[in-house]
Amino acid sequence: MSKTYQVVGVGNAIVDVISRVREEFLTEHAVERGIMQLVGRDRAVELYSSMGVAREVSGGSAANTIAGLAALGVRTAYVGKVKDDQLGAIFAHDLRAQGAGFDTPPAPRDHPHETGRCMVLVTPDGERSMSTYLGVSEFLSPADIDEAQMADAEWIFLEGYRFDGPESHAAFARAIHACKSAGGKVAITLSDPFCVERHREAFLAMIRSDVDLLVANEHELKSLYQTDVLEWAMGRAQAEVPMTACTVGARGAFLMSGGRRVHATAMPARVVDATGAGDLFAAGLLHGLTAGRDMLTATRMGCIAAAEIISHIGARPEEDLRRIFAQEGVA
Amino acid sequence: MSKTYQVVGVGNAIVDVISRVREEFLTEHAVERGIMQLVGRDRAVELYSSMGVAREVSGGSAANTIAGLAALGVRTAYVGKVKDDQLGAIFAHDLRAQGAGFDTPPAPRDHPHETGRCMVLVTPDGERSMSTYLGVSEFLSPADIDEAQMADAEWIFLEGYRFDGPESHAAFARAIHACKSAGGKVAITLSDPFCVERHREAFLAMIRSDVDLLVANEHELKSLYQTDVLEWAMGRAQAEVPMTACTVGARGAFLMSGGRRVHATAMPARVVDATGAGDLFAAGLLHGLTAGRDMLTATRMGCIAAAEIISHIGARPEEDLRRIFAQEGVA
Repeated sequence: MSKTYQVVGVGNAIVDVISRVREEFLTEHAVERGIMQLVGRDRAVELYSSMGVAREVSGGSAANTIAGLAALGVRTAYVGKVKDDQLGAIFAHDLRAQGAGFDTPPAPRDHPHETGRCMVLVTPDGERSMSTYLGVSEFLSPADIDEAQMADAEWIFLEGYRFDGPESHAAFARAIHACKSAGGKVAITLSDPFCVERHREAFLAMIRSDVDLLVANEHELKSLYQTDVLEWAMGRAQAEVPMTACTVGARGAFLMSGGRRVHATAMPARVVDATGAGDLFAAGLLHGLTAGRDMLTATRMGCIAAAEIISHIGARPEEDLRRIFAQEGVA
Repeated sequence: MSKTYQVVGVGNAIVDVISRVREEFLTEHAVERGIMQLVGRDRAVELYSSMGVAREVSGGSAANTIAGLAALGVRTAYVGKVKDDQLGAIFAHDLRAQGAGFDTPPAPRDHPHETGRCMVLVTPDGERSMSTYLGVSEFLSPADIDEAQMADAEWIFLEGYRFDGPESHAAFARAIHACKSAGGKVAITLSDPFCVERHREAFLAMIRSDVDLLVANEHELKSLYQTDVLEWAMGRAQAEVPMTACTVGARGAFLMSGGRRVHATAMPARVVDATGAGDLFAAGLLHGLTAGRDMLTATRMGCIAAAEIISHIGARPEEDLRRIFAQEGVA
């Protein structure tokens, strides 16, 4: 009997505040280039007041993946914490409008923190540098994990960023236990090399005991295994995890399983805004895997979905991904 | 001595919630095509829940004009009512980030209405159909009009939509009196043919006594003078108002003053989202007029700014308008 959900994602529920900036803005405002930095509320307010005109688009790494999966017709749901405020309503609307389930109860209006937001500064080269105020998203607790939902998922997809936060490890443990006990599989994304620095031991422990699919980019994988040699890191992952996907930027992506390794080249794309490239790679990949496609096709689907997302501002798909898959011969 | 502001705009402070929809969505949800409809809170909630994934971008007709003027380096400020909530903060940020002044005190948190929003449904042909929940924006009162600011403006720019609301006429009267007493000029945009229907007598009275520049499109001007013959409506306006600009869609725009009438052709543009075309026409036009440019050049500036805005989603400029003006030889 098939399960209700093919993929349930767990992550930080975030609204992106996206603005184009000159290159110098980053140094002038001490924003580190190309990565995600966590910021407190005061710093968030200060940075926002310095930023130019912005647009607000629902984001969050795993939420982007789930939105991408929903856009591809995969049965999905998302678990993450927003507040009962305007940005929380926007976040919930956009996920549901895409066809994903989203039933995590919002934090009440008197909660001291607001719905989380990520200030995404896009420089002229299309690179994005992110400053995230987690807000209530970091208060996702084990009580927010619906064990029945996790048991009713073929895959759960866990966001590395979500390891930041007081009850995150306990929440993940509950989700993993419920899912695996019911025969489901666990995928995790490492999110960011600095996130890996913060949580390396927890990541490694989880990867070795529970993870069926590890999704990372080359920098994250090298950080995880503390090496500068990508081949060595990929070898370690291949030995430790049933399946590992590793993106390598403009060179495409690898997928490794057992003794096999396949490589898919990247789709040519004009980089307008790199935000969400990894998230949508994961969506394309999981779409392929849940549909029972072969390793190379699933990896190509990841590369194609990533190419769509970097060709425009924002980390949620704008074009019809299924049409693009058909054009590329992987539908 | 030059005044602090070249243009101060007064309008409904609105955040746009923009979504692409299929053509059939409009009929299925009883949304009238191509115009702006006012909706109550319940209808707004119902429509939003039916809409697809959206992005949030600051909007508001006169606010778009002021943002465009600020982007062109014109000294501007805006007057409009938001609430002390997240969307209100977004609206204020985006105007100030563009370089416009914005000091209208927000309605307090316990106000029963929220910051206004406009659900902009963009069909595949680029046409936009708007459903506006005015929220607190309709509560702009005479007390929100800073007479010193109005007296310190070369032009005030009044939004026709702002005639909806309990104290709007009194607020406008106060702004006009302060501005004109100090030698300033008054521009008004008619906003929408249905807005003209609702307020024709008030518009006509104001136009005949106080308005120096009337900005309208052909449908609004014909509605104002209750005729199907554009030439006749333009003749009436030319006789009653010192200066009248009338846009005629893909055919460009006319500017009439005294016995003269000039015509500027429209810039070729691929229509992605028509939202803000009239607002940015007004920005280009007022930029030309405040810079002392001739009638034809000012009208061309309006057409060029309108072409930029319809080439992308959202009603605030994304490209450098000054660079485009230079390319087109009107810098």
